[in-house]
Amino acid sequence: MIVVLKQGVTNEEAEHVVLLMEKRGLSVHVSKGEAQTVLGLVGDTSGFDAAAISAHHLVAKVIRVQEPYKRANRLFHPRDTAVDVSTDGVVHRIGGGTLGIIAGPCSVESRDQICGIARAVKKAGAGFLRGGVFKPRTSPYSFQGMGCGGVDLLAAAKKETGLPLVSELMEIHQLEVFDEVDIIQVGARNMQNFNLLKELGRCKKPVLLKRGLASTVTELLMAAEYIIAGGNERVILCERGIRTFETFSRNTLDISAVPFLKQKSHLPVIVDPSHATGDASLVPAAAKAAVAAGADGLIIEVHNDPENAFSDGEQSLTPPAFASLLEELKKYAALEKKTL
Amino acid sequence: MIVVLKQGVTNEEAEHVVLLMEKRGLSVHVSKGEAQTVLGLVGDTSGFDAAAISAHHLVAKVIRVQEPYKRANRLFHPRDTAVDVSTDGVVHRIGGGTLGIIAGPCSVESRDQICGIARAVKKAGAGFLRGGVFKPRTSPYSFQGMGCGGVDLLAAAKKETGLPLVSELMEIHQLEVFDEVDIIQVGARNMQNFNLLKELGRCKKPVLLKRGLASTVTELLMAAEYIIAGGNERVILCERGIRTFETFSRNTLDISAVPFLKQKSHLPVIVDPSHATGDASLVPAAAKAAVAAGADGLIIEVHNDPENAFSDGEQSLTPPAFASLLEELKKYAALEKKTL
Amino acid sequence: MIVVLKQGVTNEEAEHVVLLMEKRGLSVHVSKGEAQTVLGLVGDTSGFDAAAISAHHLVAKVIRVQEPYKRANRLFHPRDTAVDVSTDGVVHRIGGGTLGIIAGPCSVESRDQICGIARAVKKAGAGFLRGGVFKPRTSPYSFQGMGCGGVDLLAAAKKETGLPLVSELMEIHQLEVFDEVDIIQVGARNMQNFNLLKELGRCKKPVLLKRGLASTVTELLMAAEYIIAGGNERVILCERGIRTFETFSRNTLDISAVPFLKQKSHLPVIVDPSHATGDASLVPAAAKAAVAAGADGLIIEVHNDPENAFSDGEQSLTPPAFASLLEELKKYAALEKKTL
Amino acid sequence: MIVVLKQGVTNEEAEHVVLLMEKRGLSVHVSKGEAQTVLGLVGDTSGFDAAAISAHHLVAKVIRVQEPYKRANRLFHPRDTAVDVSTDGVVHRIGGGTLGIIAGPCSVESRDQICGIARAVKKAGAGFLRGGVFKPRTSPYSFQGMGCGGVDLLAAAKKETGLPLVSELMEIHQLEVFDEVDIIQVGARNMQNFNLLKELGRCKKPVLLKRGLASTVTELLMAAEYIIAGGNERVILCERGIRTFETFSRNTLDISAVPFLKQKSHLPVIVDPSHATGDASLVPAAAKAAVAAGADGLIIEVHNDPENAFSDGEQSLTPPAFASLLEELKKYAALEKKTL
Repeated sequence: MIVVLKQGVTNEEAEHVVLLMEKRGLSVHVSKGEAQTVLGLVGDTSGFDAAAISAHHLVAKVIRVQEPYKRANRLFHPRDTAVDVSTDGVVHRIGGGTLGIIAGPCSVESRDQICGIARAVKKAGAGFLRGGVFKPRTSPYSFQGMGCGGVDLLAAAKKETGLPLVSELMEIHQLEVFDEVDIIQVGARNMQNFNLLKELGRCKKPVLLKRGLASTVTELLMAAEYIIAGGNERVILCERGIRTFETFSRNTLDISAVPFLKQKSHLPVIVDPSHATGDASLVPAAAKAAVAAGADGLIIEVHNDPENAFSDGEQSLTPPAFASLLEELKKYAALEKKTL
Repeated sequence: MIVVLKQGVTNEEAEHVVLLMEKRGLSVHVSKGEAQTVLGLVGDTSGFDAAAISAHHLVAKVIRVQEPYKRANRLFHPRDTAVDVSTDGVVHRIGGGTLGIIAGPCSVESRDQICGIARAVKKAGAGFLRGGVFKPRTSPYSFQGMGCGGVDLLAAAKKETGLPLVSELMEIHQLEVFDEVDIIQVGARNMQNFNLLKELGRCKKPVLLKRGLASTVTELLMAAEYIIAGGNERVILCERGIRTFETFSRNTLDISAVPFLKQKSHLPVIVDPSHATGDASLVPAAAKAAVAAGADGLIIEVHNDPENAFSDGEQSLTPPAFASLLEELKKYAALEKKTL
Repeated sequence: MIVVLKQGVTNEEAEHVVLLMEKRGLSVHVSKGEAQTVLGLVGDTSGFDAAAISAHHLVAKVIRVQEPYKRANRLFHPRDTAVDVSTDGVVHRIGGGTLGIIAGPCSVESRDQICGIARAVKKAGAGFLRGGVFKPRTSPYSFQGMGCGGVDLLAAAKKETGLPLVSELMEIHQLEVFDEVDIIQVGARNMQNFNLLKELGRCKKPVLLKRGLASTVTELLMAAEYIIAGGNERVILCERGIRTFETFSRNTLDISAVPFLKQKSHLPVIVDPSHATGDASLVPAAAKAAVAAGADGLIIEVHNDPENAFSDGEQSLTPPAFASLLEELKKYAALEKKTL
Repeated sequence: MIVVLKQGVTNEEAEHVVLLMEKRGLSVHVSKGEAQTVLGLVGDTSGFDAAAISAHHLVAKVIRVQEPYKRANRLFHPRDTAVDVSTDGVVHRIGGGTLGIIAGPCSVESRDQICGIARAVKKAGAGFLRGGVFKPRTSPYSFQGMGCGGVDLLAAAKKETGLPLVSELMEIHQLEVFDEVDIIQVGARNMQNFNLLKELGRCKKPVLLKRGLASTVTELLMAAEYIIAGGNERVILCERGIRTFETFSRNTLDISAVPFLKQKSHLPVIVDPSHATGDASLVPAAAKAAVAAGADGLIIEVHNDPENAFSDGEQSLTPPAFASLLEELKKYAALEKKTL
């Protein structure tokens, strides 16, 4: 971390700031230029609040040179992390050369619905089944998900198809009913629900962490850091679009975040083209772009009857459209030396 | 709600959509134009998902004419709601002609700190004391607040000054230690933590609900609707800046949201100029602007020693700066026919 | 266009609005629902200002059903438009199954520089040479481009390699020195310089129109409409990233805009991964994603000596990196049934 | 400017970068820390492209300590600049303790309209008349303004009322017909039309420079710098809202930009509450907030018949509403020790 003092700061004043930094356990390297004095802080500054230091009346600017995340940082962990889940002795993988495909409906609606979709997406080549039972909805008057009953239906679909389950948790005590769920999803609106992240750090299951609507990729990595710092290293990062001024798509897919996250972190990075676009007709292009940009997987909404879906019908693919997309994706994955 | 069908839709197809809507309990008024057919839906559409209907292959557009919030809506509740809190037989008010001033440090740090600041802000004219004990921090390595111990220090400050307490809750079970806290704050990052909102609907205390960084004002009102629908009508809305491309300020204070929220809702609206600007030198101008725009109150960070504050020092006013701002604000409040 | 009247509007009042619309040359279809009256406007509403109508005190909402652009609209022009440029009897194409590759330095700096880069990008497979001579720079103290002298150097590079030239115009009289330039580029900051667009409508050369930093895709299509309405149908749309809160990349590449623009318009759509990312290490992933998303071409900054470039060095590929990217892109183009 | 070299850079490599900087005319102060080497650049770096240096493969980060604007910078020009315009021997002022009020219709539509509005806004207390004759419109099919004919009508209104004229220029040759116009307005979409800015630097009239929809305040100051560097110091900055994800208002008024610009620059800062909100019912609150935040003036749209206005009717005040707002604003101005 580099601290630039204001112009005209005297030697005594500079010394005062140096002592302040040293009190916080850092060694300080002072460089006196003609125009201003610059302090280089040596030591672990990851717990350091740059904004707090910049409050000092003698300080002009504070610049972080090191990233504030450590355990999620590729610098300290150069090899790719892959996340494995076993069901019935079969290993399902995301990352490390495997393009993990998670597919299924926004919401679990009935046994027929979830089992039917599970069979269809498995046949098409998906490796994981998604299905929401606790739904974060903008309106208190909208369908809020089937709750615990929905988990049983997911379990039935898993039993029938062998597909591991991905489902979203909205608060930690819901973990009690998630025995059958294999990957815990943290939704975009909960990305900075820090207490939830801390609890998931103590959990043994992989966590699929979605980027918040207004979160930078650095904040996404810091959210992952909360989980890893708690002891759970199996975190999957998910780019799902950010909120911008543009309204033709539900969100704006930040496709460059994929290669950037892959550079900065060893964690697998997947993309959600369904929420990013909010429009089934744009999902295939977005999905192919994600693979071409280096994504380790995709999470795609599939519904047998989008027009009657309880939620998100407008962005759901039908099973045949999904199957045909997967055929295409295999060719793109091959160019990236990945297999489904 | 108005549903515009696609061009070229036949009478039979239109009838099919009408039946679909009627099955959902609405009566439908059909208007056949030359170019297209338009359906007017009559009945309670507040639980209706406009996006879901727009998924239908015969539908071109869906337009909400009514706002999706009801209990927070001024239409159904024309008179201003004021929120009162009593301590030691004294009533402290926000809204209804009273400019409620909430002041205090970002974080509770020690008994001396919180009691000293409490005395100072009370003397200057504040009506409420703020102080965080559970802190949502981007980094797991940053100071996370004093926790329960901090509540005792807040209680001591309340006992000494009589100021009611405002403090942020990050998960519902923390309510157990919040006996002495008078107004529960929901932070920007939790504005769409719907389970938390539902629980607070069952709580007897007023809730200060901060707008999310990427939330529209309609979403803020829908979050308030969750709390009111649960039975708790004492919700205070707080504009605290949104995230935009501009970086000179920590967030961008959406000042027009104040008169807009006052038009649309009966709930009191306050402004947080400290988080909105992130810079103590900009706080006074933002605070005065908020009062001039019609705000019912302000929540302002005050710290006796900003340069050594554990958090948010750069945006905290010193007690003398706060006192001098309050002198100015009284004149602006008078122009708006409000008293402190 | 659909006009929803306010609740409680009487028949006489509704009639008043109807007359107002009819005076503007539209026929109006009235539908009286229980809750409100809805007017359907039939006729050409493309010159109509929805905002102006919504100013009326009896009007609740105005909804555009038809897109405001006509000549750029695929509805009225279903077949893809391809843009051809001939140099020395060779046709160079963008769109219609051909992936047009435009490459070259941000700024023309010297004869050696531009000719060297031209040879390199041609050898690698590029079809067009880019090079700026009039540079829009944030600071008046930054290098502003070589001006007219630079055009001569571009012409020399064209003579040597046969590559058609793409260069940016900042005002219309610069067209006088652009005889040798084959495709006129309109920069992001000039996308809504409407007088310039009108003049380019009278020009015989293709126009490469870059999306503004804060422009929606609809506004981009309206800007194209200005040019086409003036008589010039050879417009190439360019997605180059929009400005958002995220700062790791110079702009946020809106990859979903590619398939959306292809749905809505017949014009060729290209992507600028260099400005979108602002970081050479992210350019290859963004370029591949663009092709996978259906782009008709790419405009990529290439510099022989990025570290000493007069501008944009941080986002320029070296010639070898460019050549190796093009090898990869050919495979992606093949999957999309396109040739370079 | 401070250049942080990458970790592991050797002394020889560091020396190489130092020479590069010295070649550009700067003296360099080297500071070797344990972790990395930091270079402090001394000299005039205002013409320097930070991004260009950061392209160097040995450079980790480049940090600007000084603002890139000089002539617009309060540091080098501590006293407030006020802009005066004389008509008929009467001085009309913006800044320096005078709250300049510019009012009038979006577009000049007829002699009766503009003269009637001019009389009304003068009577209410406005100091300047606005009226557009060249209109930047998103659609080529919308009303584009009356052009030169409109200037004659403006001149008639000026003759009758003595109010100086403010009107927008879209390209430089329109200056030829602007003899009677006293203050030249540069619209938001032209804020970075650098050639136009350069020409206006050679012009003798004050320039009202509107902030671009996606421009930072630093970019606004750099645009002003273009004009001042050309020799014209009479620049008025105008905050008129930026584009964000929020849609209830046409733009998001960045109220904190007012005190920030006043800190950083000596130029007068005015606010346009009409474009910032796009809604006449929000204009009064926004206007009062602007004065409370320290604005030196306001530009407000006023129309005698908003429902039939050719453009921007929904955001125009009627003359009585404007007169009543001005009565209120006088009290706010008094608190800020300003007179109308």
